[in-house]
Amino acid sequence: MTLEQLQEQHQQTLAKAVAANSARTFHAHWPEAPSGKIYGETANTMGEVAFKGQLDSQCKGLLQDAIGGWVGQESSPYGFPLGITYPTTSVDDYISRASSAQVSWQSVSAEHRALVLIEALECVAKRFFEIGYATMHTTGQGFVMAFQASGPHAADRALEALSMGYSVQSTFTDSVQWTKPMGKISVTINKKYRIVPKGINLVIGCSTFPTWNSVPGMFAGLVTGNSVLIKAHPGAVYPMAIYVAEVQATLNRCGFDPHICQLVVDTTEKPLTLDLLRHPAVAIIDYTGGPAFGAIVEKEALVGGKVVFTEKAGVNTVIIDSTENVDAMLENLAFSLSLYGGQMCTAPQNIFVCKDGVATPEGLISVEDIALKLREKIDGLVGNEKMGPGTVGAIQNAATAGRVEEAAALGLPIIRASAPIPHAGFNSARSVSPLVLRTDVARSDIYTREWFGPISFIISTDSFEDSLTEVTNSIKAHGALTTLVYTTDPEKMERAEGLISRAGAPVAFNFNSYVWVNQSAAFSDFHGSGANPAGNATFADVQFVASRFNVIGIRTQA
Amino acid sequence: MTLEQLQEQHQQTLAKAVAANSARTFHAHWPEAPSGKIYGETANTMGEVAFKGQLDSQCKGLLQDAIGGWVGQESSPYGFPLGITYPTTSVDDYISRASSAQVSWQSVSAEHRALVLIEALECVAKRFFEIGYATMHTTGQGFVMAFQASGPHAADRALEALSMGYSVQSTFTDSVQWTKPMGKISVTINKKYRIVPKGINLVIGCSTFPTWNSVPGMFAGLVTGNSVLIKAHPGAVYPMAIYVAEVQATLNRCGFDPHICQLVVDTTEKPLTLDLLRHPAVAIIDYTGGPAFGAIVEKEALVGGKVVFTEKAGVNTVIIDSTENVDAMLENLAFSLSLYGGQMCTAPQNIFVCKDGVATPEGLISVEDIALKLREKIDGLVGNEKMGPGTVGAIQNAATAGRVEEAAALGLPIIRASAPIPHAGFNSARSVSPLVLRTDVARSDIYTREWFGPISFIISTDSFEDSLTEVTNSIKAHGALTTLVYTTDPEKMERAEGLISRAGAPVAFNFNSYVWVNQSAAFSDFHGSGANPAGNATFADVQFVASRFNVIGIRTQA
Repeated sequence: MTLEQLQEQHQQTLAKAVAANSARTFHAHWPEAPSGKIYGETANTMGEVAFKGQLDSQCKGLLQDAIGGWVGQESSPYGFPLGITYPTTSVDDYISRASSAQVSWQSVSAEHRALVLIEALECVAKRFFEIGYATMHTTGQGFVMAFQASGPHAADRALEALSMGYSVQSTFTDSVQWTKPMGKISVTINKKYRIVPKGINLVIGCSTFPTWNSVPGMFAGLVTGNSVLIKAHPGAVYPMAIYVAEVQATLNRCGFDPHICQLVVDTTEKPLTLDLLRHPAVAIIDYTGGPAFGAIVEKEALVGGKVVFTEKAGVNTVIIDSTENVDAMLENLAFSLSLYGGQMCTAPQNIFVCKDGVATPEGLISVEDIALKLREKIDGLVGNEKMGPGTVGAIQNAATAGRVEEAAALGLPIIRASAPIPHAGFNSARSVSPLVLRTDVARSDIYTREWFGPISFIISTDSFEDSLTEVTNSIKAHGALTTLVYTTDPEKMERAEGLISRAGAPVAFNFNSYVWVNQSAAFSDFHGSGANPAGNATFADVQFVASRFNVIGIRTQA
Repeated sequence: MTLEQLQEQHQQTLAKAVAANSARTFHAHWPEAPSGKIYGETANTMGEVAFKGQLDSQCKGLLQDAIGGWVGQESSPYGFPLGITYPTTSVDDYISRASSAQVSWQSVSAEHRALVLIEALECVAKRFFEIGYATMHTTGQGFVMAFQASGPHAADRALEALSMGYSVQSTFTDSVQWTKPMGKISVTINKKYRIVPKGINLVIGCSTFPTWNSVPGMFAGLVTGNSVLIKAHPGAVYPMAIYVAEVQATLNRCGFDPHICQLVVDTTEKPLTLDLLRHPAVAIIDYTGGPAFGAIVEKEALVGGKVVFTEKAGVNTVIIDSTENVDAMLENLAFSLSLYGGQMCTAPQNIFVCKDGVATPEGLISVEDIALKLREKIDGLVGNEKMGPGTVGAIQNAATAGRVEEAAALGLPIIRASAPIPHAGFNSARSVSPLVLRTDVARSDIYTREWFGPISFIISTDSFEDSLTEVTNSIKAHGALTTLVYTTDPEKMERAEGLISRAGAPVAFNFNSYVWVNQSAAFSDFHGSGANPAGNATFADVQFVASRFNVIGIRTQA
């Protein structure tokens, strides 16, 4: 495809995305509903057929030679091995292909790169249903969530990042004739400004959100002229393989070397990540995953003088002070605690309530009654045969299921016990409902740790001020992706907003309908603040793209 | 002053600066000529009177208590001690004042901050002549250069950085009502986006360009809501004291705590820099200075997880391949080698010439003849009683003068010997003319080091290609702020542009008039590429400002 063809087809998409990043009103280029009316009546069936056809076979769609053979070890949390293998090669091969591919990519305009990438995303969109099944059976997400998170929501995050990268590269002219008046004479210099990418951009994915958390860095890296290596988590390769395959096919069709974007697949027995991290040609690293390996990534990046963007994990907190509608509040919170079994980096863990209770139009409700009412709401949701299993999904990692048992055995009063959730058609699914424990500030040794999974704590405090202090201290010490505050008091809102935002975490107030604190919307919500120990990446603010390239000035005497 | 008054007076200045950052045509808010017609017929006299009045006395203009007493040890390279002392205090005092001052500063709009800072710069501009004398007698620059570099040029760089910071903070709305359509219903969330500064911004200055190299970081830090500590070099405090004093007075006048911007003065006996660097409240560091201490700064920043911008030093290179005007070329180069005695981080050091000679309209000129002609041009410039002393100025640091002697004793053929330059009225001025040595690529052990000062090498190579390889290898290994290539061959220009820009350094081609490779123009030339070992800072690209703050989202159920 030529630049003119790309412009004709995608210029408006790019312009709208650029405008949306600025206006931050609701914008979605790809509808989130997995609906036949939108994506075609056969889309779901074809997606499922494609998924089933891929099982137990080599993934042939990637334009990468399998010099190092075929590897793969994915297994569905719903209880079966996927049996898919992917081409692999040596770290040196990946790097040398990426380096030579970058030369032509960095020499075209930012607009050209952006349009190629939008074309690739439109091709990805034709495979959203396959991506949904691939994501469901690697992450354990229920199908609708898997479709949305890895399909339209991820693609919108990618579009957001690439349009942000395009904008930042377009904030200044690419050439100018500069004339300086000097009294009676003047002197003229012709100037050009070249975008020079920092180098190879390594994106290290995670097993719970293999595309949503990785495509922002991937597309930010690509639009700024870098070659990108996507190091997928060995447990969740398939969804990302589809993104990479479509990017590679599009690059090829547009006359570029497909090795500008490569998928790196390794195994837990023979991991490649550290060797990639340490390679001097790797200049930028995007990492999503646990804090332990995250600390290693950061150290290696620092030693090597690399740019690093991390999203590790934090301890997300809730304060319940007062509400106008206790049912709506607790239904919203119950959904946030149940969705994907608490395996979202944005899911709440610690719920602080003043020991005097919660002010409502019906009067003060005791902590005990709030806890029981929350249990009812969770029971109602997860016990609903139609809604429950799909909302909770399955547990990606056996260690997470083990953590639920560990938490239940802590000896804290159990508000709601975790129990297996049956999934029709998947008898071996690893799925459990939320565990809710009750404690107070004396047990901060327990609750200030991250308990990744469907585990939460209702914690009594002496006052709203104490709850707020707990929250801000927790943000500073342990990081947070989200905070949620329920209060009807404008003064408390103002104080919470000031203190929590200065502590470096976003705040949501009084969510009581169909928006949940776990969710962040592309083009509107900045995901991650970058301002606390949970990580320094933000999807997608200006620094998320601006740090991936330099500008080199070329001056010529006129 | 109220926001309305600031808007009335400075909104246009801000708008023009924002536009200039984008268009990159010639723009200067403050004229560079030290002319009475522009700045007032008495401005020079008053500046000199102010300067002389400040000598041998306490600097009273700063709104900082001298809890730690008064210190100062500046000495003019023109041969006399300044005898000025400045208020000092403990690191903890500086930090606690900065931290508490930041709260109100970060809560106002980016526009408000930008306008306050422009008002401060306009007040600085009334003291440009005093700044000129202060800079001359701390750095050793000739008066005209000192006036320009520390006055209008520095103020324009400050305006560039603050307007860039304002632009980046203004790329998105500060609040929005977000409504998501969900089939028959919709859900509305009110959103706000708060700019949260990373924390205290420490700016570490150098002795040769105490303001020009420090004000970009200072104003970028301030406009993004950070409190700033300016740690001036003990040898060059006075020029920066004027900037800080005017910023403090303006903050005060506009109702802000002057401790938002503090000058830190220490002594070589009792330095404070490391303690400041390591303080956990310091989140951003701007450093200009030598590579040895620069490495320490970088290490401390990495350990502390701080944002760091450095401009250390590199080895700047020239290739002479061919020219249409050998005299104009060598006059331009002679000026670049002589200006401020080679004490600019942008001054050329290594001049590569193919052993076959330089192609000119008069035929090939041998390396020997080019060298001799360059000597003539330098002689003509520095021997000119009217032009010479003011162009070369004085040597800031005795170690630099010692380096000239060391280089002369290397045993390499001397093309041009360095000699003392007399300065009328300053019998003890430490001033020497450029030393030019001749060698070839066999002595790369010598010339690949940085020889800071008026020291350059003419180096024979086997070919243009070899010269280009020398240049690109040097950029990658030792860094560079500038490169300069003379060639009339379009193919060689293209190859040089591609290879040098990918190596990470800017390129200037065929400079032969009144623009020199050492100079970079605010609003047009990005100073420093940030893409090679010479440093990661660029005045002022988007990442120079974007990395100084985070955005925190506040979402409220509508």
